[in-house]
Amino acid sequence: MRQVKVFLNEDEIPRKWYNIMADLPTPMSPPLHPGTGQPLKPEDMAQIFPMNLIEQEMSPERWIDIPEEVLEKLLLWRPSPLCRAYNFEKALNAPVKIYYKHEGTSPAGSHKPNTAVAQAYYNKEFGIKKISTETGAGQWGSALSMACNMFGIECRVFMVRVSFDQKPYRRLMMQTWGAECFSSPSSQTEVGKKILAENPDSPGSLGIAISEAIEDIMGKEDARYSLGSVLNHVLLHQTIIGLEAQQQLGKIGEYPDVVIGCAGGGSNFAGLSLPFVRDKINGKEIAIVAAEPTSCPSLTRAPFGYDFGDLAQTTPLLAMHTLGHDFVPAPIHAGGLRYHGMAPIVSHLVKERLVEARSYHQIETFDAGIKWARTEGFIPAPETSHAIAAVVEEARRAKEEGKEKVILFNWSGHGLVDLLSYDAYFSGKLTNYTLPDEEIDRAKKLVAQFPSP
Amino acid sequence: MRQVKVFLNEDEIPRKWYNIMADLPTPMSPPLHPGTGQPLKPEDMAQIFPMNLIEQEMSPERWIDIPEEVLEKLLLWRPSPLCRAYNFEKALNAPVKIYYKHEGTSPAGSHKPNTAVAQAYYNKEFGIKKISTETGAGQWGSALSMACNMFGIECRVFMVRVSFDQKPYRRLMMQTWGAECFSSPSSQTEVGKKILAENPDSPGSLGIAISEAIEDIMGKEDARYSLGSVLNHVLLHQTIIGLEAQQQLGKIGEYPDVVIGCAGGGSNFAGLSLPFVRDKINGKEIAIVAAEPTSCPSLTRAPFGYDFGDLAQTTPLLAMHTLGHDFVPAPIHAGGLRYHGMAPIVSHLVKERLVEARSYHQIETFDAGIKWARTEGFIPAPETSHAIAAVVEEARRAKEEGKEKVILFNWSGHGLVDLLSYDAYFSGKLTNYTLPDEEIDRAKKLVAQFPSP
Repeated sequence: MRQVKVFLNEDEIPRKWYNIMADLPTPMSPPLHPGTGQPLKPEDMAQIFPMNLIEQEMSPERWIDIPEEVLEKLLLWRPSPLCRAYNFEKALNAPVKIYYKHEGTSPAGSHKPNTAVAQAYYNKEFGIKKISTETGAGQWGSALSMACNMFGIECRVFMVRVSFDQKPYRRLMMQTWGAECFSSPSSQTEVGKKILAENPDSPGSLGIAISEAIEDIMGKEDARYSLGSVLNHVLLHQTIIGLEAQQQLGKIGEYPDVVIGCAGGGSNFAGLSLPFVRDKINGKEIAIVAAEPTSCPSLTRAPFGYDFGDLAQTTPLLAMHTLGHDFVPAPIHAGGLRYHGMAPIVSHLVKERLVEARSYHQIETFDAGIKWARTEGFIPAPETSHAIAAVVEEARRAKEEGKEKVILFNWSGHGLVDLLSYDAYFSGKLTNYTLPDEEIDRAKKLVAQFPSP
Repeated sequence: MRQVKVFLNEDEIPRKWYNIMADLPTPMSPPLHPGTGQPLKPEDMAQIFPMNLIEQEMSPERWIDIPEEVLEKLLLWRPSPLCRAYNFEKALNAPVKIYYKHEGTSPAGSHKPNTAVAQAYYNKEFGIKKISTETGAGQWGSALSMACNMFGIECRVFMVRVSFDQKPYRRLMMQTWGAECFSSPSSQTEVGKKILAENPDSPGSLGIAISEAIEDIMGKEDARYSLGSVLNHVLLHQTIIGLEAQQQLGKIGEYPDVVIGCAGGGSNFAGLSLPFVRDKINGKEIAIVAAEPTSCPSLTRAPFGYDFGDLAQTTPLLAMHTLGHDFVPAPIHAGGLRYHGMAPIVSHLVKERLVEARSYHQIETFDAGIKWARTEGFIPAPETSHAIAAVVEEARRAKEEGKEKVILFNWSGHGLVDLLSYDAYFSGKLTNYTLPDEEIDRAKKLVAQFPSP
């Protein structure tokens, strides 16, 4: 009988995260203090993040120990299975082997808890009793709620009002895990109150929600903010995905020709791919592909430069591919990919041509996701379907070239709580969006105001 | 580091289902033809089920081979992990070890696909091209949709209108897997048209939906009906759960003192417990507990007798615990436990005192389910929370008795698509229901019309 899944035993789970900082052929441009324009010092972030996570954010060490307490929680669902998609391969009728890392097996249904658990732990260690964060569709808010609950930390989530009203399921996950979830703009903060006073019907935005979450913790000794993607330490925590995958492939004597992940802020893509980028730096021949939406093409079309991570300009200036911190992406259903910027690490790797970026239209991603559900069973999240669309393209290329290929991709999460987006697809309501060139020009002008990386 | 999960490798997956018919100390009362009152003959069911499944339904063989084609599909998510609930144990502060079989890892999120895949395969083998079924909340309809899609069979699901309108998620799962899902009563059948003519606003019922599904296939050479619980062959297909669990416990040198499952039609309970019932028949000391809702107490309060499996009286007469085929259960959120009868096998085992039944109120099951989510992470389905409530009770007893106990239960499915029921809990809208004695008397009178088993 053919082998479908490769399990790792629990005692084979990676004990260290991989930090690509130690292996980059060229150094990254450091984050800058927006006031002074100088490289950021650890103490500049001390009000927002606990110092142990700030140290991790800036660490040059190649391997960083995963604390036992974190491993213990990760073991509730990790190591995640590596699976071979025989049925999908057959449907594509191309000379490819397709392996996927199944991150949908976590309690929240995505890869997000990998970093949520680690962040909650480090905050706890640092004496933090309350964490605030923002969430759009709720993937990150729900993952952090679960993690905070595990470590006895109070969790407050500011959820963009339009999602809060229209998507009750992830809000209910947060509540089930004991967090408080506020419709943002809320009356919990000054910024929220001000916006509500001006416009009681404000639908909210991620920018507003970030501002609320940060205001909510500022000046409080035992409260901090938490971010679910983009930053170095978040990507670091996700490398357990790729490290497990390398062990699992090793067990069956395989190595991928192509590694694929979808990229919004960059964390699931980096989580799978960074250990393979290391191999590439060390001479391995391997293609590493980030798949993003055509409607929000930070990697494929936007300039590389310094920009803020948020609308309210509260973050440091980060060197990254960015559509501009005030960019409003089209309302595609892959909420997790609707981010104006891209993780500095991923941006740097694209700039250095270690990673290749491609973009996909919304409808072709749903085509790919439904083909997947109808062959492999599991229903992917709309974000994950971008990676699947890239797999379909790779398979087609392999067929055209008559070349056998081994493809590995990150199945970052299931779509059971996103099924209304499938409804939109079936009822013909989905649209493709292509960004006009003027938007790119606008982004170029915006980053030109800041120092050049 | 403590071990949380026991995996089986794919080559350790059970190759045979276990049929308890071969080991029962006393014979079961056979199903009867409702017209003649005589034991049912295989040909009596030939219009409704394919003959290969009818043979399985009546088989006396202890072990029945799982076809390779079925195993191949089950391997998409099986063997499922056996997990130890250390965090839940700690929260209960009782001298118990709690193991659970995690059936929430399937694409549909529950144990239902175990039999759906097998049934779709046997129908395909028999030349069937179309399967119709009914579904309430949609757990069964979605599982069968996925399975039919895997084997290229057309699937038509009649979904009770009130759920069709209020619970779009599982309907969308069916659609994603390529099935047609009709709001029942529908205009697809004569019975549906008749009801709609009389009452265009009919909310539908499981009874109506079954009648529609059966009418939809009657008299068609290449179409058959499929049922997701109650029948012997359905329970048989679910025994893979208990067989895997026995192997997994064996690997760590454990054996349970108590085995627990929630019971609606009986399939997930039987799936885990039947292999342990066999041990009990062979002399092992073990308690086996079926947990049902207080509002629908077929095992704990209803008479044992012959009754129909459905409102429309289209099924054979089955010897079982039954609240009467026209019983309308209270609107509890555990839709999968709202069934008037109970699998004949499970009913027989309760009558023979090999299985013990207990009932739990809705609110205490949610209390237990939320305690679970807040310790172990995974959010249980409302049905599963009945089993968790029984675990809580067992732990309390162990503490009172000062006795160490090993508990094993079936974590039958996740509740991510049932989160609106958690909303009802958090907003204080949940109610407990106790069935008045008159309902039990009514059921006794009803079964008294039929032959005595």
